[in-house]
Amino acid sequence: VKLWGGRFKKELNEKVEEFMRSLPFDKRLFREDIMVNLAWAEALAKIKILSEAELEKIKKALSEIEGEIERGEFKFLPTDEDIHTAIERALVEKVGEAGAKIHTGKSRNDQVVTDLKIYLKREIKEIARLLRDYLKALSELAEREKDLVMPGYTHLQPAQPVLFSHYILAYFWMGKRDFDRLVSCYKKMDYLPLGSGAFSGTSFPIDRKFLAQKLSFSHVTENSVDAVSSRDFALHFLNQAAILMIHLSRLAEDLILWNSKEFSFIELEDSFTTGSSLMPQKKNPDPLELVRAKAGRVIGNWVKLATVLKGLPLSYNRDLQEDKEALFDSVDTVKGALSFLPSLLSSLKVNPSQMRKSLQESDVLATEAADFLVEKGVPFREAHSLAGEAVKLAVERGESLEALSLKDWESVSPLFSAEIGDYLSIEKSLQRRNVEGGTSPQRLQEELEKAQHVLSRMEEWLK
Amino acid sequence: VKLWGGRFKKELNEKVEEFMRSLPFDKRLFREDIMVNLAWAEALAKIKILSEAELEKIKKALSEIEGEIERGEFKFLPTDEDIHTAIERALVEKVGEAGAKIHTGKSRNDQVVTDLKIYLKREIKEIARLLRDYLKALSELAEREKDLVMPGYTHLQPAQPVLFSHYILAYFWMGKRDFDRLVSCYKKMDYLPLGSGAFSGTSFPIDRKFLAQKLSFSHVTENSVDAVSSRDFALHFLNQAAILMIHLSRLAEDLILWNSKEFSFIELEDSFTTGSSLMPQKKNPDPLELVRAKAGRVIGNWVKLATVLKGLPLSYNRDLQEDKEALFDSVDTVKGALSFLPSLLSSLKVNPSQMRKSLQESDVLATEAADFLVEKGVPFREAHSLAGEAVKLAVERGESLEALSLKDWESVSPLFSAEIGDYLSIEKSLQRRNVEGGTSPQRLQEELEKAQHVLSRMEEWLK
Amino acid sequence: VKLWGGRFKKELNEKVEEFMRSLPFDKRLFREDIMVNLAWAEALAKIKILSEAELEKIKKALSEIEGEIERGEFKFLPTDEDIHTAIERALVEKVGEAGAKIHTGKSRNDQVVTDLKIYLKREIKEIARLLRDYLKALSELAEREKDLVMPGYTHLQPAQPVLFSHYILAYFWMGKRDFDRLVSCYKKMDYLPLGSGAFSGTSFPIDRKFLAQKLSFSHVTENSVDAVSSRDFALHFLNQAAILMIHLSRLAEDLILWNSKEFSFIELEDSFTTGSSLMPQKKNPDPLELVRAKAGRVIGNWVKLATVLKGLPLSYNRDLQEDKEALFDSVDTVKGALSFLPSLLSSLKVNPSQMRKSLQESDVLATEAADFLVEKGVPFREAHSLAGEAVKLAVERGESLEALSLKDWESVSPLFSAEIGDYLSIEKSLQRRNVEGGTSPQRLQEELEKAQHVLSRMEEWLK
Amino acid sequence: VKLWGGRFKKELNEKVEEFMRSLPFDKRLFREDIMVNLAWAEALAKIKILSEAELEKIKKALSEIEGEIERGEFKFLPTDEDIHTAIERALVEKVGEAGAKIHTGKSRNDQVVTDLKIYLKREIKEIARLLRDYLKALSELAEREKDLVMPGYTHLQPAQPVLFSHYILAYFWMGKRDFDRLVSCYKKMDYLPLGSGAFSGTSFPIDRKFLAQKLSFSHVTENSVDAVSSRDFALHFLNQAAILMIHLSRLAEDLILWNSKEFSFIELEDSFTTGSSLMPQKKNPDPLELVRAKAGRVIGNWVKLATVLKGLPLSYNRDLQEDKEALFDSVDTVKGALSFLPSLLSSLKVNPSQMRKSLQESDVLATEAADFLVEKGVPFREAHSLAGEAVKLAVERGESLEALSLKDWESVSPLFSAEIGDYLSIEKSLQRRNVEGGTSPQRLQEELEKAQHVLSRMEEWLK
Repeated sequence: VKLWGGRFKKELNEKVEEFMRSLPFDKRLFREDIMVNLAWAEALAKIKILSEAELEKIKKALSEIEGEIERGEFKFLPTDEDIHTAIERALVEKVGEAGAKIHTGKSRNDQVVTDLKIYLKREIKEIARLLRDYLKALSELAEREKDLVMPGYTHLQPAQPVLFSHYILAYFWMGKRDFDRLVSCYKKMDYLPLGSGAFSGTSFPIDRKFLAQKLSFSHVTENSVDAVSSRDFALHFLNQAAILMIHLSRLAEDLILWNSKEFSFIELEDSFTTGSSLMPQKKNPDPLELVRAKAGRVIGNWVKLATVLKGLPLSYNRDLQEDKEALFDSVDTVKGALSFLPSLLSSLKVNPSQMRKSLQESDVLATEAADFLVEKGVPFREAHSLAGEAVKLAVERGESLEALSLKDWESVSPLFSAEIGDYLSIEKSLQRRNVEGGTSPQRLQEELEKAQHVLSRMEEWLK
Repeated sequence: VKLWGGRFKKELNEKVEEFMRSLPFDKRLFREDIMVNLAWAEALAKIKILSEAELEKIKKALSEIEGEIERGEFKFLPTDEDIHTAIERALVEKVGEAGAKIHTGKSRNDQVVTDLKIYLKREIKEIARLLRDYLKALSELAEREKDLVMPGYTHLQPAQPVLFSHYILAYFWMGKRDFDRLVSCYKKMDYLPLGSGAFSGTSFPIDRKFLAQKLSFSHVTENSVDAVSSRDFALHFLNQAAILMIHLSRLAEDLILWNSKEFSFIELEDSFTTGSSLMPQKKNPDPLELVRAKAGRVIGNWVKLATVLKGLPLSYNRDLQEDKEALFDSVDTVKGALSFLPSLLSSLKVNPSQMRKSLQESDVLATEAADFLVEKGVPFREAHSLAGEAVKLAVERGESLEALSLKDWESVSPLFSAEIGDYLSIEKSLQRRNVEGGTSPQRLQEELEKAQHVLSRMEEWLK
Repeated sequence: VKLWGGRFKKELNEKVEEFMRSLPFDKRLFREDIMVNLAWAEALAKIKILSEAELEKIKKALSEIEGEIERGEFKFLPTDEDIHTAIERALVEKVGEAGAKIHTGKSRNDQVVTDLKIYLKREIKEIARLLRDYLKALSELAEREKDLVMPGYTHLQPAQPVLFSHYILAYFWMGKRDFDRLVSCYKKMDYLPLGSGAFSGTSFPIDRKFLAQKLSFSHVTENSVDAVSSRDFALHFLNQAAILMIHLSRLAEDLILWNSKEFSFIELEDSFTTGSSLMPQKKNPDPLELVRAKAGRVIGNWVKLATVLKGLPLSYNRDLQEDKEALFDSVDTVKGALSFLPSLLSSLKVNPSQMRKSLQESDVLATEAADFLVEKGVPFREAHSLAGEAVKLAVERGESLEALSLKDWESVSPLFSAEIGDYLSIEKSLQRRNVEGGTSPQRLQEELEKAQHVLSRMEEWLK
Repeated sequence: VKLWGGRFKKELNEKVEEFMRSLPFDKRLFREDIMVNLAWAEALAKIKILSEAELEKIKKALSEIEGEIERGEFKFLPTDEDIHTAIERALVEKVGEAGAKIHTGKSRNDQVVTDLKIYLKREIKEIARLLRDYLKALSELAEREKDLVMPGYTHLQPAQPVLFSHYILAYFWMGKRDFDRLVSCYKKMDYLPLGSGAFSGTSFPIDRKFLAQKLSFSHVTENSVDAVSSRDFALHFLNQAAILMIHLSRLAEDLILWNSKEFSFIELEDSFTTGSSLMPQKKNPDPLELVRAKAGRVIGNWVKLATVLKGLPLSYNRDLQEDKEALFDSVDTVKGALSFLPSLLSSLKVNPSQMRKSLQESDVLATEAADFLVEKGVPFREAHSLAGEAVKLAVERGESLEALSLKDWESVSPLFSAEIGDYLSIEKSLQRRNVEGGTSPQRLQEELEKAQHVLSRMEEWLK
């Protein structure tokens, strides 16, 4: 069954049919498609294209069809091109003439983009909910370990002491921006395309605002050509999803490193690791590796859609069919990654002694030595150079900075006095970074409170 | 001159130096870097690291340096790694010890991302301004040609009659969303990173809110690790720029097609076309071809940065240096395309007779024939099929639908009555699409007014 | 059932299990996996790890398993992580202890990459075969229409007359290079990884050359770490596939344009077009639009894998699991597009009168006018300018170049003599382009012969 | 000065001119453009379009122009659109009428792609040369450290002992394939496009084989339309360059990890590291981080060109101008990375004691325990499980596998006998992996010899 064919003398080539068939993936939109048909039927009834009796029959039949598909009882035919065709075909089978009226003034062009927007709006809410759970887990981990100190890294080299919680909360703020971007994306796509017909507007006096209200859209699209031709909303979502996955991939990388034998800063619970078919001792962070890798997947999906849209003339072209799989795959990927990260984080064990050991073996207090001289009035550039000399001295001896004697310090600069010993302390170093956003314990406390506040605000939007 | 080196025993390898040098491109940020140095100097003075006299000397020197760079008189040295180094080096040359203090509590890590955000915020405003001009030109073109009818296309096949202005305004609404996305991107990046130090916060009691106010940021970043490690703001911008360019590439494609000999719907003014070095008759739409192609360029830039960020551990890594060229190139590309499109559009000539001819030679009224039957009570699916039969009849005769006689129509279905002749009119077809967002003349008028309103709202943000 | 677990105290988290499960897509490799198990069993028997009796039991069981999967009777369990696990699990169920020996000295790391290479080598041959059919169809179309003249385009503007066949054969040579690239890719991946163990080589004295021969590989890999870690062969293939699809997308674009109402150079047969659910007259080139769009899909797949591999440390990491779907999807896409293009091409109708009309209405002979002057001794740059003046004259009058009188020509330059009339002929223009690779009828004949020769050479490789 | 304009009434819009100008980047092709002009002049002289005297003047003038550009003395004018225009303009200024003849029968369409192929062929050779140097450095490092043992990793977890040299040589074989791919790419593009005119072939009886010989091409292109329209050679190169950079990025990642404080397997020489502007102790592997990041750059360049080409109709379109910057940038990036890696590798210090320590603290011999049981006749799957039990026992005690007593082993399985102690040795483990491509010392020796052989074969191609 096809929704067209009157003017054709020859059947569609079989291999073409297979190449073009979207049913295997677009059947995921059956609920949305039925919602749209329901709303459309009501709108047709309001303008008397359907009688009340026909409307009732259609509503009942659509509800049956939905149930059949949900229960896996619906028979898709090899000739059903897509989910719209399958549903309209079944509707006609069930209610005859009334069903054959459902397509009045409607095109697949405006229907498919409406289906997709309904789907995506719901999934964005769902992703936002999972993202909130993940952010909550991050903030709870930070709360739980708020006294833990670790070496912070730049260039994967120990740089300065930092509170573990502060480092972890960096991911909280990234995720907070991801949440805001999702909300923003949601709001910008909240315009109903239905009623745009093939591209020039429907030719029946349909009440589009009524449709918008039925289908929970805040607005109707302002231009029918734009409505059926544009997919910027989808590309916009793919970008937000890609950035979110990139952030998760960075967390995954940090955890994989910290979980390595050599770092041993954390231990993953058994249930978030896997073994080897060959090597009995292995306990591998596979789930995190896949989170890292699958960021590439969503990046690729963005490229797919961007490439499809580039240089495409208006209005609807079949090329737009390629939007769906890129979206579905990205939604699944993001939800999959977010589904277990909260549990992984809350079951994470930290290894304070290893972090402390690593701190002590590094020269992470060298900046303090320079700052010490600055407080004595030495210009920073010179102080930096002198502290560097001290590091060189220690490196040559194969010792850490803290092993230098007062005499050693004085050999570098007479301004280094006995107090340098007190000054070179991890705790003092932390306390000195007492600016907004800094790693001092006091600021961390503030940061944790802000995080709570942010989480509450998210709740409101999710309601 | 380097900003480090105390602990090193060997010079940087020459080829490495060349490979890593960012000065050739980051010198574009000299104004921003000087602004940051100025604000930082004031903040240091507030906490007495700098005396008032030192501050004055620094301000004067920075202002001189800015002038020298602007006038092309500044001498960059081969050993200047980047713009920060060059400016600090020159500052020390000019004011000695006071200059050597400027880096107190500051890192290139927080400085470079601050420079970049200042730059990008300004450029977003600039792009938004150009975008507004382009949208204005679209709306003026639509206003100018509001009675013009053309065949609308789906699948590059004539589909239904549409007002040229309505088709053109589709691009207006795409651009309107691009504008909104730019504003949204601007607001989300409006957090000052300065004062985050290397990644753990500055160790001096700097007033970050004072800095934010001096540098026109609405907020300060909440986490120092996040502040130096994240570039989602840049990737977010690249996405908005890519979508914008994709929209322009679609317009370019439509105009290239309409400007082809075979369509001849429009003519580009000579000043927006070029000739051939070999073929004397050629008048080619090269600028539009480049707009189309350069969408690919911005897409590629997004990929570059996404790939760089994926899987990168915290906090600062040198990989992040790769953010700049992708941004600069995208900003230049978008501005370049927007710079001439308004003039191109306002000088565009349309060819009404050719559009009308094309309309008459197509069967764009076949939907009306089906609608005609619907109004007689025939279910749409059947009506569609009967109208398809009529088309087949016409195609077999090599004629258009309008050439069919009443008898022909009746042979397809007895329900086709004499009124079908009146019904199959371009004007009636347009008028019937009288829903919100549809192509009827009345709705177009509303749409033009909405566009005016949108343009006024843009003005406000741009102030 | 898992192939590991001895050292674990806790089960894998359920959501993680779902997130990581590769069985839904890697079961496509069941034949390859069974082939590898068979060869490995023989190799184990050669070194007496398996007795002859055990070998026979394993062979029989593997053959049964293959049949069950083929017939859809195999029961995959929810706990089967991947196809390797499922098959080994079933094998143990069937033959007990002998089955439990199959994994001796083998790792999933070397097995999965071996499976994938076997799969890809076969599919490359299959794609090459389909590509050959497509190239044959192109050459037959060129042969069939060898006298047909059309306007050739640059910048989508009529440029010079060209033989339709010559234009079409441009796609032949692109495809010829695609074929060569596929062969090259095939040969470069023809190295067996099996026997590399987890990454350091198998610890049993397995005969890898014997395995290579059994599994039809020409060589064995030279380094076990490289063997399990590298996927350049897959990325290389994705590039070749992407270029091939890009070439097809360009052909699709040309055909879509030529099939538009306005060009009307060709007509697609009904069976390669589809209709509209709303507009009864529509006959849309949807299959070609999808060919065009799906090039973006393969481009995106290349990006996915490239992004996954970038910056990944050695040796095996779970990230590599992401190679498969990108490959499978690309193989399916390329085969889908190639499957129907030959029939589409051979059923293509051309419209000679429309092409001729378009030629006559353009100024495609302006280059000849310049060449005319060159033959009179005028330097080309000047001749180009004078011919340009003639075009301007014609354009101002709204006429074509051929409508100019001798007097008109002389007004532009006295060197234009009466012979200019003869000179400005489409046939003469074609004949003059008589260099190798040019569009003269004589050169076209040569080109068709070369194409035949190329097709024969392809046959040999495909044997 | 423009190479066209006769038919135009209005000048090019200024902003368009700026947007389209390619001179800033295509002037890099001046040598190639002059070579092409020289060869073309000779070809024109052979058919008497140029006299011998004119030819001599042209040769002299072109040589002067080349010198001027090389010495930076050439005056580019703001109106020079591109390098071809600039050179032809200067030629006419120098030799008048003879210069104005140079464009006879030639188009920028065939010239620019010829320039680009000449450039790229030379650069491929240059890259191959640098790649050979890098591979030589890898093999020398492997030769130098051939007794060094390290823990091999899968999933960044210690897996099995491996020779450091064997691990390093994995990169050799990747690079060897990169070399082969470059050679293959070179050969496939070795077809001269010159003489294809605008797209239909030149209209003068030019000897294209003579041109090919002059310009060192092995073949001439077979189809003029294809010749000016196709850029698959460029995209093919970008793929090879991207894979090469991905391989380098993986090496960079491994070295960055090994160079971290926590691994401490290697130490980079000072000259391949940089410091921090703020933290005096820092010694960062910035050059390697940039190698890693810049792989993303080349990936993005591939995407740019792929996106530009997708769906582009034939023949020449201005979009193709976008090929150049993507190529130039990729060539520079690859050469930059390869320029210093050989020295970095040869100056690398390894830390044998740290590697040994890490080996001993891991359970990398667990596979041996399973193999031990296999040799006693236990099926591998069961042996794996029992060895896993032993690991669990050790982990619970916080000890390594080697600390288990015979009694402990027997508690896991009575088959573990006293010999297990001997069996669990790093050296024995290495020796057992004695298959082709395995890590045994004997196989490593073979591998080193093969590497020598490969290097010699490279020399031949590079001659």
